[in-house]
Amino acid sequence: MLTIADAFDRLFATVKPLDPVSLALGQSLGLTLAEDISSTADSPPFDKSLMDGYAIRSTDLNHGTATLEVVEVITAGMVPTRPIESGQTSQIMTGAPLPIGADIVIKIEDTARDGDLVRVTPQGSQTNIVLRGTSVRSGDVVLRAGTKLNGSRIGALAELGRAQVNVHRRPTVAILATGDELVPVDQEPGPGQIRNSNESMLVAQIQAAGAIAVPLGIARDNRIDLRAKIEQGLQCDMLVLSGGVSAGTLDLVPSELAAAGITEVFHKVEMKPGKPVWFGLRRVGTTANYVFGLPGNPVSSLVCCELFVRTALKRLMGEPALRPQAVPAALEHPHSARADRPTYHPARLTWTPTGPVVTLVPWHGSSDLCGTVAANAMALLPGAARQYGVGDCLETFAW
Amino acid sequence: MLTIADAFDRLFATVKPLDPVSLALGQSLGLTLAEDISSTADSPPFDKSLMDGYAIRSTDLNHGTATLEVVEVITAGMVPTRPIESGQTSQIMTGAPLPIGADIVIKIEDTARDGDLVRVTPQGSQTNIVLRGTSVRSGDVVLRAGTKLNGSRIGALAELGRAQVNVHRRPTVAILATGDELVPVDQEPGPGQIRNSNESMLVAQIQAAGAIAVPLGIARDNRIDLRAKIEQGLQCDMLVLSGGVSAGTLDLVPSELAAAGITEVFHKVEMKPGKPVWFGLRRVGTTANYVFGLPGNPVSSLVCCELFVRTALKRLMGEPALRPQAVPAALEHPHSARADRPTYHPARLTWTPTGPVVTLVPWHGSSDLCGTVAANAMALLPGAARQYGVGDCLETFAW
Repeated sequence: MLTIADAFDRLFATVKPLDPVSLALGQSLGLTLAEDISSTADSPPFDKSLMDGYAIRSTDLNHGTATLEVVEVITAGMVPTRPIESGQTSQIMTGAPLPIGADIVIKIEDTARDGDLVRVTPQGSQTNIVLRGTSVRSGDVVLRAGTKLNGSRIGALAELGRAQVNVHRRPTVAILATGDELVPVDQEPGPGQIRNSNESMLVAQIQAAGAIAVPLGIARDNRIDLRAKIEQGLQCDMLVLSGGVSAGTLDLVPSELAAAGITEVFHKVEMKPGKPVWFGLRRVGTTANYVFGLPGNPVSSLVCCELFVRTALKRLMGEPALRPQAVPAALEHPHSARADRPTYHPARLTWTPTGPVVTLVPWHGSSDLCGTVAANAMALLPGAARQYGVGDCLETFAW
Repeated sequence: MLTIADAFDRLFATVKPLDPVSLALGQSLGLTLAEDISSTADSPPFDKSLMDGYAIRSTDLNHGTATLEVVEVITAGMVPTRPIESGQTSQIMTGAPLPIGADIVIKIEDTARDGDLVRVTPQGSQTNIVLRGTSVRSGDVVLRAGTKLNGSRIGALAELGRAQVNVHRRPTVAILATGDELVPVDQEPGPGQIRNSNESMLVAQIQAAGAIAVPLGIARDNRIDLRAKIEQGLQCDMLVLSGGVSAGTLDLVPSELAAAGITEVFHKVEMKPGKPVWFGLRRVGTTANYVFGLPGNPVSSLVCCELFVRTALKRLMGEPALRPQAVPAALEHPHSARADRPTYHPARLTWTPTGPVVTLVPWHGSSDLCGTVAANAMALLPGAARQYGVGDCLETFAW
């Protein structure tokens, strides 16, 4: 059976970033640049005061103090009209351009004003100015393609005048739960029935990954319904099914996907929960449809979505081909692992002054979704049955 | 001057969670429950198979094997009609109810079918069933008020039939940049002018915190414009201004906020960048308006928003009164710190198999927003000038 590492290798060999689109900067949070961004000007564009105070010639300071004539008030947004000669100063506001001749700003707290005169006595040696081009020179590449946009980077793009940016767009992801036993969330289950919790869960996980979730409801365990809803789901960049991929009589999903022209990339991964996970694609010209078949037990779907669907979505959105980031955390209690394959166990990751620690939460297996609500992460128990001790380091993945 | 810890104490003494609202489950991602959630039924609601296979009486296994008559096929969603007597079995699908009499499921891989008979030879001792109520008993509290909703918790709420939930709503946050030197992002700055990068940056930071950003554009440095736009901003739960809170002639913000009935909670915090940060509120009946005045230099605004605005927003949204989570990370290079107060330095946080490490990125101070684009975090250098060595532990805060 495929190892987890092999499954990721096949995933990354298959999934390619979506084409770039031009978006308004305000729509770009969490998206990844599809172009290098260069500056067309120096930043700051002029020598600038970092403080409210007085702009002076530093050579006027005699034994650290001077009394100077105030010739102008320079507010942010205006252009100084008076050069500073020896014995002169201009009052200046934070962000305002430095007047010609001045090379230092004395902050207002270190000054005493008296009519047209001001006595300046700087504490410390800071110039309180920033020279033109200190931050960026015209022509510099400030942000590289592949950079994910957060607040500071969006601010920098705004400073550079980029009201539109080329980014990889958000994928659309159809979500289809399969099974005759399922009823919608707002209905009371009859005998042998359960609510379709996987749809709500997968919608939330896919939205949290930054993609656009398109829930398709429930497909019943027959070929006609399944085929129709699979075709509908293939309108999206990705289709995520839950249920119908294990080995039973009614597990029609793999054969119906094959009939829809989807080629299997992998089926079954040596992991717990989630072993029956299925992944494939259909490529028509330059367009690809990616399809995941997740096992129907809710925690199996949860874990496979966190691992594989989320990673595929990040890659579609232009992020690097990297497996989920593990936080190495110290186990807080002994644990006796009985599984015969790598297990992702619901866990509580907390931070202490000396680093992250992890507690495995009580959990009754792949159908026990309510057991996972105390968790904020999953910890990887890597395989063979063994006894873990306090302080053992586990790879932990935040949800 | 106020310490950072004191500022957080005052913030938490001031900011109270917003009133609960009832939302559709699909709208609740990232929000915090405002009610305890109990189960009204056992989960699972019936004894259930975890595998595709054959349901049998375990006492029928003789030396670990048995040949049994198949009396029924039980698919998920149906109700078994035939009890299992000794010598009998029903074929069963994952998620289907266990028939009366059976106490174990042999997975299909461990069976050989021959007409109406099947030979079962289980490998291992697993029962492959989950008993009614294993996960949750009717009446159990499954999720507590104060829990932030992610995929697994939303899935659990769906399983419990909660199509609507009471959560703390998303705050609305008006964003107002002040300054005569500012031009909109899509305009070319004239002499002495710069683009309004803070608005785009703060909108993104506030959206990333889960709140609804309402950008108000630029207020000019005069009382009439400022007063009108402050009144407009007070339609929102929170108003975030940038600029106009330091000590200069044109820093009208504190006095205009006072005129609008906003009471100062704190002004100036012993930190760098961001020292002039201002925070206050107006309470009318049960309604509160919270106001932040952030320093206009972009990195000062960035840092104050990450620290104080984001923390206040989390609290408004019902999260616990906790300061931002520090990741203790090992410094990768020596660093000579010259500041006289605690400094949040743009930094690159990365994960190694032995834990998090941090690099301080080259940075020219509070006006150098472009210098922060290489950062994904900020590291706290706690105060006095000193020499840091490789491996020194710094509190790091992911952006």
